[in-house]
Amino acid sequence: MPPFDVPEGDPFGPHNLPYGVFSHAGSTQRTVGVRLGDHVLDAGAAARALGSPYVSLLAQPSLNPLLAAGRTAWSDVRRALTAWVTVPAHQEAIGSFLHPLSSVTLHLPFEVADYVDFYASENHARNVGQIFRPDAADSLTPNWKHLPIGYHGRSGTVVVSGTDVVRPSGQRKAPADAAPVFGPSVRLDIEAEVGFVVGVPSERGRPVVLGDFREHVFGLCLLNDWSARDVQAWEYVPLGPFLGKSFATSVSAWITPLDALEDARVAPPERTHALLPYLDDAQDEPGGYDLRISVAINGSVVSEPPFSTMYWTAAQQLAHMTVNGASLRTGDLYGSGTVSGTEPAQRGSLLELTWNGRDPLELPEGKRTFLEDGDVVTLSAWAPGPGGTRVGLGDVSGRIVAGTVE
Amino acid sequence: MPPFDVPEGDPFGPHNLPYGVFSHAGSTQRTVGVRLGDHVLDAGAAARALGSPYVSLLAQPSLNPLLAAGRTAWSDVRRALTAWVTVPAHQEAIGSFLHPLSSVTLHLPFEVADYVDFYASENHARNVGQIFRPDAADSLTPNWKHLPIGYHGRSGTVVVSGTDVVRPSGQRKAPADAAPVFGPSVRLDIEAEVGFVVGVPSERGRPVVLGDFREHVFGLCLLNDWSARDVQAWEYVPLGPFLGKSFATSVSAWITPLDALEDARVAPPERTHALLPYLDDAQDEPGGYDLRISVAINGSVVSEPPFSTMYWTAAQQLAHMTVNGASLRTGDLYGSGTVSGTEPAQRGSLLELTWNGRDPLELPEGKRTFLEDGDVVTLSAWAPGPGGTRVGLGDVSGRIVAGTVE
Repeated sequence: MPPFDVPEGDPFGPHNLPYGVFSHAGSTQRTVGVRLGDHVLDAGAAARALGSPYVSLLAQPSLNPLLAAGRTAWSDVRRALTAWVTVPAHQEAIGSFLHPLSSVTLHLPFEVADYVDFYASENHARNVGQIFRPDAADSLTPNWKHLPIGYHGRSGTVVVSGTDVVRPSGQRKAPADAAPVFGPSVRLDIEAEVGFVVGVPSERGRPVVLGDFREHVFGLCLLNDWSARDVQAWEYVPLGPFLGKSFATSVSAWITPLDALEDARVAPPERTHALLPYLDDAQDEPGGYDLRISVAINGSVVSEPPFSTMYWTAAQQLAHMTVNGASLRTGDLYGSGTVSGTEPAQRGSLLELTWNGRDPLELPEGKRTFLEDGDVVTLSAWAPGPGGTRVGLGDVSGRIVAGTVE
Repeated sequence: MPPFDVPEGDPFGPHNLPYGVFSHAGSTQRTVGVRLGDHVLDAGAAARALGSPYVSLLAQPSLNPLLAAGRTAWSDVRRALTAWVTVPAHQEAIGSFLHPLSSVTLHLPFEVADYVDFYASENHARNVGQIFRPDAADSLTPNWKHLPIGYHGRSGTVVVSGTDVVRPSGQRKAPADAAPVFGPSVRLDIEAEVGFVVGVPSERGRPVVLGDFREHVFGLCLLNDWSARDVQAWEYVPLGPFLGKSFATSVSAWITPLDALEDARVAPPERTHALLPYLDDAQDEPGGYDLRISVAINGSVVSEPPFSTMYWTAAQQLAHMTVNGASLRTGDLYGSGTVSGTEPAQRGSLLELTWNGRDPLELPEGKRTFLEDGDVVTLSAWAPGPGGTRVGLGDVSGRIVAGTVE
């Protein structure tokens, strides 16, 4: 009988209840699971056993039907799940549908529609500006404080935590080189980010206003936007990052619903520039989230980026992304951009942590400027929960493996 | 009885047979259609009536199953269709499945997975460089001749020909302005392009080599990558175009299979720079296509861009897009980039045609620098076919309508 009484202080207690998709060993059948401690509840089977009306949202091979169902359904399902895992009579009925995490395989929890990545940490943007444009008067580009800069990424290479990341090959050209050379990236980097998952679609031509953020966005996950800095540097003028990013983006297997993060809502940093009305959240909900991220390489923590420092909020990003009439689809994913705090030990990329390789990290297994084959990068995070609890976000982890192209 | 003998010289004769998806008036049931003259053949119904093994590929609401089936199936199905519309006994059997185009609704013919847009016309890139960087020593960026520059666009706003395009709003800032302003774009533009449709997926970590282009790409369409130049100019440094492009991309309703374009294959322009091996097509298939595009605004032809002038071929773009290990999915779409020839009357955007508004076009209804509400833009094209015939590409058309945000 699995433990409904998860240990006190467990960040995956009944106050959390993130959603994922799993299968049993030897089976290809995927279904929605809800994490409780170190177990996963087969939510569709539990719903069926209890005669719940939510079978059609939970007995599914992906989260998409639940995502599309909208905020009222999200709250109702969460209320039902909370009862199932806390009320003794229900616990008895669903006990056999709780499985040890170690016995299941976790999958990409939703079908990614469009993937957008932002650039919303002022500290990160300033660090990158200083590294790449040391002579510029301002380390931020002129537009940075007026709009959340973003670009579209490759949805087809979003992978779930645990998936190996093949070192990409590509063109690179140092300024002194006469011509570009081709080969495996020698500046493979991480970007510690938070990803937001859109549930409810919107119509083309109809912007989503700031205040409707929570009507459209279901929840969030951790996201590592792997980056080949050498490839990116040579290709990105004038149309932005392409192959330097498109080989893989890893997301955690668990999507934490916004409803679990009510106690983590915080005001964003003070605005230094007046905002156009569609982005002005001064009168609106706080918009920020207090998420404490941790970045580990081969088990050694190398950084602890605080998400509360992000200049642009997820609500502003959504408003901006749709202000031109672009529509949303269920499964749209957007990344916050690399999260970097004010301190050196809070930087969310190796580019910043090693100052473009100048200051290597000292790890037990040796020095690191950028990632080496075999390195395992793990992002983890927690947020303040009700009554002093912690709400755990699912880890996102990936191992670098050598590519086949030399 | 519909005419199997399409008029001589009809660009949609039995030598063409492009694929689309249609529904009948009053029905929501979509199914694959094949164009013949000014009729559409209900291909699934015809396959069923003839006891064809291809029912499962054709009696479908989108082209995706056919796209995924691969080159051998593509050729087999095309051979079967050719027989159905040319052999009298078959004609009789399928006659009742031919419907006038005017009686059906055409839909987006496939589910768009990832959408990438390239920048492969040297003339276009040079024109843009001269307009925006008049003082630069070279109008091309240093990377331009070494790799096909591209970026990811928004798949969710790819729409079928005939769909209205809502004028996007957004931020813009003229260099002399102190701060950005918000409002409907005042520099709404077209980009006349060709779109390539991926059928067969590839594995993450395994680049698709140049020579495998035809194993993965099913066919092509016309594509108009609508662009808000004022929004784009303010947002695009450093991460590339975002809201200036993401509001809508229109594609023709008909996908022309590569097999119909054998006679249109041509060598690309001479390479002025040595290419890295993965892009070097000197020993490979020609790679280029001789497509004669025509751009009309409200029925007046304003430009005739020749696709044969494109510096980078679709095969090179595919090889580049995957060389970092990025995988392909069925339904991936990639645009060639604006097609511009060497002559002023061959430019594929208003930005170039009016030289950023300096030289307005004179249309019967008045002067145009950029698009006005109510304007209808139509791209059409043909390619040389067997025996002196023309292979018609489906038109892509869209009307600009005012947005709701002011």
